[in-house]
Amino acid sequence: MYSFKNDYSEGTHPNILRKLLESNDEQLEGYGLDRYCEEAKVHIKRHFKCDKSDIHFLSGGTQTNLIALSSFLRPHEAAISANTGHVLVHETGAIEATGHKVISVEVKDGKLNPTHIQGVLDYHSDEHMVKPKLVYISNPTEIGSIYSYDELKALNECCRMNNLFLFVDGARLGSALTSKENDLKPEHLTTLTDAYYIGATKNGGLLGESLVINNEILKSEFRYLMKQKGALLAKGRLIGIQYTELFKENLYFELASYANELADKLRNGIVKAGYNFLSDSPTNQIFPVLPDKIIERLSEEFNFYVWEKVDDNQSAIRLVTSWATHSDEVEKFIKLLK
Amino acid sequence: MYSFKNDYSEGTHPNILRKLLESNDEQLEGYGLDRYCEEAKVHIKRHFKCDKSDIHFLSGGTQTNLIALSSFLRPHEAAISANTGHVLVHETGAIEATGHKVISVEVKDGKLNPTHIQGVLDYHSDEHMVKPKLVYISNPTEIGSIYSYDELKALNECCRMNNLFLFVDGARLGSALTSKENDLKPEHLTTLTDAYYIGATKNGGLLGESLVINNEILKSEFRYLMKQKGALLAKGRLIGIQYTELFKENLYFELASYANELADKLRNGIVKAGYNFLSDSPTNQIFPVLPDKIIERLSEEFNFYVWEKVDDNQSAIRLVTSWATHSDEVEKFIKLLK
Amino acid sequence: MYSFKNDYSEGTHPNILRKLLESNDEQLEGYGLDRYCEEAKVHIKRHFKCDKSDIHFLSGGTQTNLIALSSFLRPHEAAISANTGHVLVHETGAIEATGHKVISVEVKDGKLNPTHIQGVLDYHSDEHMVKPKLVYISNPTEIGSIYSYDELKALNECCRMNNLFLFVDGARLGSALTSKENDLKPEHLTTLTDAYYIGATKNGGLLGESLVINNEILKSEFRYLMKQKGALLAKGRLIGIQYTELFKENLYFELASYANELADKLRNGIVKAGYNFLSDSPTNQIFPVLPDKIIERLSEEFNFYVWEKVDDNQSAIRLVTSWATHSDEVEKFIKLLK
Amino acid sequence: MYSFKNDYSEGTHPNILRKLLESNDEQLEGYGLDRYCEEAKVHIKRHFKCDKSDIHFLSGGTQTNLIALSSFLRPHEAAISANTGHVLVHETGAIEATGHKVISVEVKDGKLNPTHIQGVLDYHSDEHMVKPKLVYISNPTEIGSIYSYDELKALNECCRMNNLFLFVDGARLGSALTSKENDLKPEHLTTLTDAYYIGATKNGGLLGESLVINNEILKSEFRYLMKQKGALLAKGRLIGIQYTELFKENLYFELASYANELADKLRNGIVKAGYNFLSDSPTNQIFPVLPDKIIERLSEEFNFYVWEKVDDNQSAIRLVTSWATHSDEVEKFIKLLK
Repeated sequence: MYSFKNDYSEGTHPNILRKLLESNDEQLEGYGLDRYCEEAKVHIKRHFKCDKSDIHFLSGGTQTNLIALSSFLRPHEAAISANTGHVLVHETGAIEATGHKVISVEVKDGKLNPTHIQGVLDYHSDEHMVKPKLVYISNPTEIGSIYSYDELKALNECCRMNNLFLFVDGARLGSALTSKENDLKPEHLTTLTDAYYIGATKNGGLLGESLVINNEILKSEFRYLMKQKGALLAKGRLIGIQYTELFKENLYFELASYANELADKLRNGIVKAGYNFLSDSPTNQIFPVLPDKIIERLSEEFNFYVWEKVDDNQSAIRLVTSWATHSDEVEKFIKLLK
Repeated sequence: MYSFKNDYSEGTHPNILRKLLESNDEQLEGYGLDRYCEEAKVHIKRHFKCDKSDIHFLSGGTQTNLIALSSFLRPHEAAISANTGHVLVHETGAIEATGHKVISVEVKDGKLNPTHIQGVLDYHSDEHMVKPKLVYISNPTEIGSIYSYDELKALNECCRMNNLFLFVDGARLGSALTSKENDLKPEHLTTLTDAYYIGATKNGGLLGESLVINNEILKSEFRYLMKQKGALLAKGRLIGIQYTELFKENLYFELASYANELADKLRNGIVKAGYNFLSDSPTNQIFPVLPDKIIERLSEEFNFYVWEKVDDNQSAIRLVTSWATHSDEVEKFIKLLK
Repeated sequence: MYSFKNDYSEGTHPNILRKLLESNDEQLEGYGLDRYCEEAKVHIKRHFKCDKSDIHFLSGGTQTNLIALSSFLRPHEAAISANTGHVLVHETGAIEATGHKVISVEVKDGKLNPTHIQGVLDYHSDEHMVKPKLVYISNPTEIGSIYSYDELKALNECCRMNNLFLFVDGARLGSALTSKENDLKPEHLTTLTDAYYIGATKNGGLLGESLVINNEILKSEFRYLMKQKGALLAKGRLIGIQYTELFKENLYFELASYANELADKLRNGIVKAGYNFLSDSPTNQIFPVLPDKIIERLSEEFNFYVWEKVDDNQSAIRLVTSWATHSDEVEKFIKLLK
Repeated sequence: MYSFKNDYSEGTHPNILRKLLESNDEQLEGYGLDRYCEEAKVHIKRHFKCDKSDIHFLSGGTQTNLIALSSFLRPHEAAISANTGHVLVHETGAIEATGHKVISVEVKDGKLNPTHIQGVLDYHSDEHMVKPKLVYISNPTEIGSIYSYDELKALNECCRMNNLFLFVDGARLGSALTSKENDLKPEHLTTLTDAYYIGATKNGGLLGESLVINNEILKSEFRYLMKQKGALLAKGRLIGIQYTELFKENLYFELASYANELADKLRNGIVKAGYNFLSDSPTNQIFPVLPDKIIERLSEEFNFYVWEKVDDNQSAIRLVTSWATHSDEVEKFIKLLK
């Protein structure tokens, strides 16, 4: 049964496997100090114009979030997140387990704005409450929406004015940056945020997130934190080689574009079939609202998540495309829907 | 320059890469719930006779240690470790970062025995001190020595009598179990310990440790802890496939045997050349004591750690072999030594 | 300027100071093992019919909450609290600092019920989320409301059915138990909860909360946790003597009754003056909604918190009475209001 | 039976009880923001010449240690302590529970020196180990010895050169500063350390430690940490009043001097009776080595700790004097010894 359940169902892009094979016999330094990690950093710095940033390679999103936040925050400081934020509900309390509260803000479209943040700051007035110190956003968000340049700029200004850090969870960053509606350039992440990461797990890699730390005061001794939380892989080459392949040219963006195109195709097909969506997502996760009977029928031939009940007869489902999604399965899905 | 620095310098055994390639297009469940993870567990259960144990796949030793110990211990409980224990000094305080003290016991040969443990228990008498609750040992130890069946049995009895958990760090377990001096069978780990792990990173894998939890009361909800600490890989297949390859027949033991044989060859050569060793290691890490001048000369052609100064003119070095070590480089090393 | 700001503005009941003086020269055991602590426990056990419970003396509410919850929960387990819960917003992330998430439930009257809890349980479905394990309620709540016997019974049943712990923050327990609307007897806390505490700081003591642990499985080695978090006072007598005085007869309940009576007097005066309240509180904290101009005038002669803006011209204020409140100041306040 | 077991057996100096009574009816701000806390700070600043330091009042030594260290250190940073250090063994892992390792250094006399610290720094060479960042010393030490001006100066220089914080546990600071062998002035603590505390619990108070933070970069938002760890007492006046009484004139030093004098008297009597001491303590804790038979006889009439076995027939005991010790009991003890 074909799956639109997520973007990490398949292995990895063949180029990566080929390079793993080619480099397999080389003796390399451990713990991310090998030449592939160095090469990957050079390529990322070129694409994201982040020459002065520090780059670290980690295994997954939860690991990256928990290490970054626990490194950046003092014990009484907290992160602010949209109520849909991955750190808030889908990481088993990973941030809290490092001692920090995540403050939830109720939002409609998965996105935080300066008004939300000001509200949190106004409320947290003294030492009987945690001190909000870091704004956590995901781009794209957990429901597929993306931040425009103006929106990110506004957050940046709000954070600077209020002495807050701005952190971007980029587990699906490729999909945001290659979305048709996107007007953010890679370098804007470098100029407008304190730190962000570039996810590979969900865009063609086997595992791996590249954390880019822009703010000088957050850079210090970050590798200690990685080691302490069990994130310094002995064979760091495994991630270095992947990022080298993804960024030595434009593979990372090509894979994300492909995933977005197939999502567009799905979306268009669903629109034409006369259905609406739970959220306005221009990226590789879409949330059509369908009659439960139709969902039942689709489930017989495709694998996907039923996201939430919308009313007595309808539910939203989540469909995710990836670099590996088969175009003809998309067509079959649309055909079946009709 | 050829390296004897460690056993994670190279990539991975070719069978593993081949299988990654073969399975690459399959759509699989995420987070370790795929069929390769299941298959790997079947094979491990056969080899270690641990049918009733729970098995979890993690990325590396530090990660495994910190998740296991923080899952097994209440906040005031502590681990007991030999002063050479990896958790004690080489994990950047990973265990303490989860809130637990590691109690150090001064030992000669890297190994704990019941007398050591009784001493710790006698000393920790009331609620003004932590409560010792778990005995952490490594097999082989960090200096290459191994536990005999009788020694492990004695620890098991001591722990049962004192209501302590016995935990074995098996980052190099293959090397211990295939050492010529070893009399432990794989199944003894299952019958004599509460939990242990079987390391692949240092025995032919890309990354991966298999944690085997034998004690019923330690099993509950362990995956929550894995997720919370960032250890649940989205593409869990990556580790499942490796363990399938390593254990579907005897590859794991064959690779470890090979590493041990080359270590024997090195050891014999060094003995013949007239030198002694810092510790009595029958596994794949050996610690010859050599004149500093000779060390300097060897360093021009080989890469290795100078472990510690022994006297004004001599130091111990660490030489490590692996599944990928070239036999002719071993010969060249010995020749150069003479 | 007279203050209705809180119930910890004054020192302590004179009987307590007298007893401190009388016992001052006695040489006593440290760390809560003295005879006054023992005597206090006997009295508390008589009043709360908790003969089989363990009792521990701590300094304040935040300390008690953080030690109890971190002792009772495993790392991935979370507490459920009403959105007004003290642990959620007014303890600087104390619970999160011990590693645990507090799940917020939006409620109207400060109180949790089984429907709320079931909603949380339904939502938290797998290991990618924390596991709800403890229900935290305050009685009276942070906005002065109280739980009836039936309400507490319903929570007890819900918790038992779902294998959850029920924990009562009793920082102002005296005020709840002596409220005119209350139908809970002290012993119901013992039979219906896993643990609760009896606050003295806000009812005539200098400092002190008595934690009563009813559930056998939560009792083990609790003093270790107290010591580890810095809560084991060397001169434990200081708290033991206070609870001896408060409970050797009925002083604790008399002081709380007095505070409630003065709150009733205030409430009645405000009602007669034609004003409403933000919440329906039958205890010693009341929240009248007043025109901002009147609040301004009252502020010139009395000290109190402006709690929240209600509309453009009105706000709610918080008035708190205590064992030490002067009846004539209550009269002056009401007079001024009119 | 008279007790020399510790210096917290009795209540508190009568002046303190008198002042508690006098001030009892005053309505004061909570959480340490009252006028007595302010007044106490003025007096302390005068005595310790620490006008620019921040002063905070906490309840006990373990609480102060754990809050200070967890506020001062980043997650991967560790404290260095003598093996006799209170934080190392007698606080139930309180520091580790906040996530930080305490590195133990084997010493003879309870005291750290720059050579010890350099050894620790040399050993901790990279991100696979914790980063030593804070030197924890106690003055007097846990075995009664004291630091001279030169010794403290040397530690200060070592710490500044190596970018380490110097922290002094002063649970018994009064006894050190009034010892006959002492050449440290109170202001030296201010000029030579980053933070220190002045203990009252063991020198005439009911509870209370005054933490003095000298280093500007350690001051920020410390009250948040106090609240988070449950240390911000609602009735902060309780500690403020004690320090006002202890420091408005010289009561603190007079009480400590008295304790030292009685310790001198005990020590001299023991010397005259022909016995030696386990450690060279010029403060209020002494450790005579006595034949076990004599210890047995003394135990029938006095209460004290048997500290450690020295040989088959002898043990060291600990005798502690305080502001409340009866001079005639000291004489009786000496007489009985003879």
